[in-house]
Amino acid sequence: MECSMTETTDGLMPFYAMDILKRAKALEAQGRTVCHLEVGEPGRPPAPRVIEAVRKALPQPQGYTNAKGMTELREGLSAYYQEQHGVTVDPDLILATMGSSAGFILAFHTAFKPGARIAITRPGYPAYINTLLGLGFGISEIAVSPDQGWRLTGAEIEAAYNRQPFEGLLFASPANPTGADVDRQGLADIIAACERLGVTFISDEIYHGLDYRGPSVSALELTRNAIVINSFSKYYCMTGWRIGWMVVPEHLVRRAEILQQNLFISAPTLSQIAATVALGERDYAEEQKAGYATNRQLLASGLRELGFTLPVAGDGAFYAYAGISKFSNNAMGFCEQMLEEVGVAATPGIDFDRTDGNGYVRFSYAGTAATITEALERLHRFLA
Amino acid sequence: MECSMTETTDGLMPFYAMDILKRAKALEAQGRTVCHLEVGEPGRPPAPRVIEAVRKALPQPQGYTNAKGMTELREGLSAYYQEQHGVTVDPDLILATMGSSAGFILAFHTAFKPGARIAITRPGYPAYINTLLGLGFGISEIAVSPDQGWRLTGAEIEAAYNRQPFEGLLFASPANPTGADVDRQGLADIIAACERLGVTFISDEIYHGLDYRGPSVSALELTRNAIVINSFSKYYCMTGWRIGWMVVPEHLVRRAEILQQNLFISAPTLSQIAATVALGERDYAEEQKAGYATNRQLLASGLRELGFTLPVAGDGAFYAYAGISKFSNNAMGFCEQMLEEVGVAATPGIDFDRTDGNGYVRFSYAGTAATITEALERLHRFLA
Repeated sequence: MECSMTETTDGLMPFYAMDILKRAKALEAQGRTVCHLEVGEPGRPPAPRVIEAVRKALPQPQGYTNAKGMTELREGLSAYYQEQHGVTVDPDLILATMGSSAGFILAFHTAFKPGARIAITRPGYPAYINTLLGLGFGISEIAVSPDQGWRLTGAEIEAAYNRQPFEGLLFASPANPTGADVDRQGLADIIAACERLGVTFISDEIYHGLDYRGPSVSALELTRNAIVINSFSKYYCMTGWRIGWMVVPEHLVRRAEILQQNLFISAPTLSQIAATVALGERDYAEEQKAGYATNRQLLASGLRELGFTLPVAGDGAFYAYAGISKFSNNAMGFCEQMLEEVGVAATPGIDFDRTDGNGYVRFSYAGTAATITEALERLHRFLA
Repeated sequence: MECSMTETTDGLMPFYAMDILKRAKALEAQGRTVCHLEVGEPGRPPAPRVIEAVRKALPQPQGYTNAKGMTELREGLSAYYQEQHGVTVDPDLILATMGSSAGFILAFHTAFKPGARIAITRPGYPAYINTLLGLGFGISEIAVSPDQGWRLTGAEIEAAYNRQPFEGLLFASPANPTGADVDRQGLADIIAACERLGVTFISDEIYHGLDYRGPSVSALELTRNAIVINSFSKYYCMTGWRIGWMVVPEHLVRRAEILQQNLFISAPTLSQIAATVALGERDYAEEQKAGYATNRQLLASGLRELGFTLPVAGDGAFYAYAGISKFSNNAMGFCEQMLEEVGVAATPGIDFDRTDGNGYVRFSYAGTAATITEALERLHRFLA
């Protein structure tokens, strides 16, 4: 697949969401109120005990930790896999990373050489394409469709591979922007396809925990050959803390560690302290999730009533990826007009899908129910 | 230059310093005391007002900032260049990064395509080689010598280029491990050579402020075509906070911003808040520096008395790169024995120079004067 809408010679593109955000802030500076449904981050701080632990640590010097991260954090993550997923993961296979962002960079350079081709779904998280192209890797897009709840299948992977082989598959479940979450059988099917084809599987599990139809299945429950990427950003409300982790197959962990030493030294120390405590604060995280679950239903039914196409409400994460064919075939124009006229900010589908994205808009329901309700009322006026 | 001592197929090598550190911690666990002269980080926390600002911000949600970083921080950095270097730098050309580590990754991918060759000095900071090779770039090493105070010259750059051309030069002043700091004329000579050759200059200014023979000159005082990398880690005692910055030429800044959006999203928010305040706390930083300045003299004269070769004490940073030819031609063996027998931890030169490093050991004087004094006494026993 070749990308046509490029700003730079190697296919890098800016996020249109950033232009929306900039315009939203300009409107707010003029005194307008804006309903922020463009932002993919929780509006709440981390749990009180997390804040308290950081407060206590603050007076001490916060030096580098060892490259893989604090032992307590990696042991806590190992316990998390035992408790939530029923699998034993050696803490030595876990690295604390500067958000999932650094995890992706480490994963790509640990498993592949620059120039290797990595498959991703379309629609998908826009940083996937830009990071891969920016680092000198190739991409191969596999389209997923709303008819199948936006879920990828092993057969689609094989078909795409037969058209053009690739060395890796990077796949998120629950997914951004669709919220699609594959079940155990679905994930096993994907992993089996990768193993048949000799494709390295990278499982982006950043939205784990935010799953409204039963707990998400980790790739670690099914294979030890996958690289798993996760983060404290979403479920634990810690986006700006830039702290995530990765689990690496045994034969790759030494290379991942050496790359981490050199590319990043270590993840932010205070954020590692915070993350260690956050793992024990799932009750707080579940409270936030209960709010998103309410918002999810509210937004899905509201959007459908207004005429948006939304065959599924999304299994997880906090996004509704809504079809706008009834109103427009120009997602960016639609988002701009919606923002200007009624002050509702959302992200045009072209950020997630350079081919079919003009037919979609992503609404985030990470905010409050009051924001969702207000936004739906404004959309009613906008579309009337 | 081809690297021979490689652990992985593409030339990546672990830090021997890490093995020393691991052994030092094992000895401490057995009840031994260790003088830590292997660590390149300040032993003090950031200034009290920095801590206080973070404490106040803690209860709020710390979301992503915009990709380039908080406006207040970038304006503060612009003021820093005006006040310390007498140059006007548009805040829009400044990006807050996750330590200088992320700054390097952004710089390489902003200015070059994977496969491009970047020149570095030998000896030099080991992450330079490993990061470049790990990301798929080539390297070219330019040897600097103790006879010239380890300072690089424009003539050496031209000679190296004529042997094998390169697209970029990554250069630190003050340098790790030698402490060498070029003066204004020396830096102008280097920049002029790069401009004659069409080589992109990346100026690593992470040890700026820690200069004992007059203020370091920023590349920005001499050119607007360089990429400047800096960090709050050393001068402001913030290593584990993972916060640095870069200044990018105008024609590259949009690409750097897009790469930052995708590769890293944004630097840690609390660390950006801390860094903004740290810029106003130079008195505190200068107090720390006064301690290093005392240590520098103490360590240099002590090492010379013991028979180490140290033609220059180092102009800046907090390292003495001492010749051990009187004692050994095996730096790692020397460091291991020194640690086992008298509990002094230092870094073997082979971490910084894969060709001639066996003749050198790097001692850090970032710790306390008491540690330096104790280490010198132990070294006296060790060498007797």
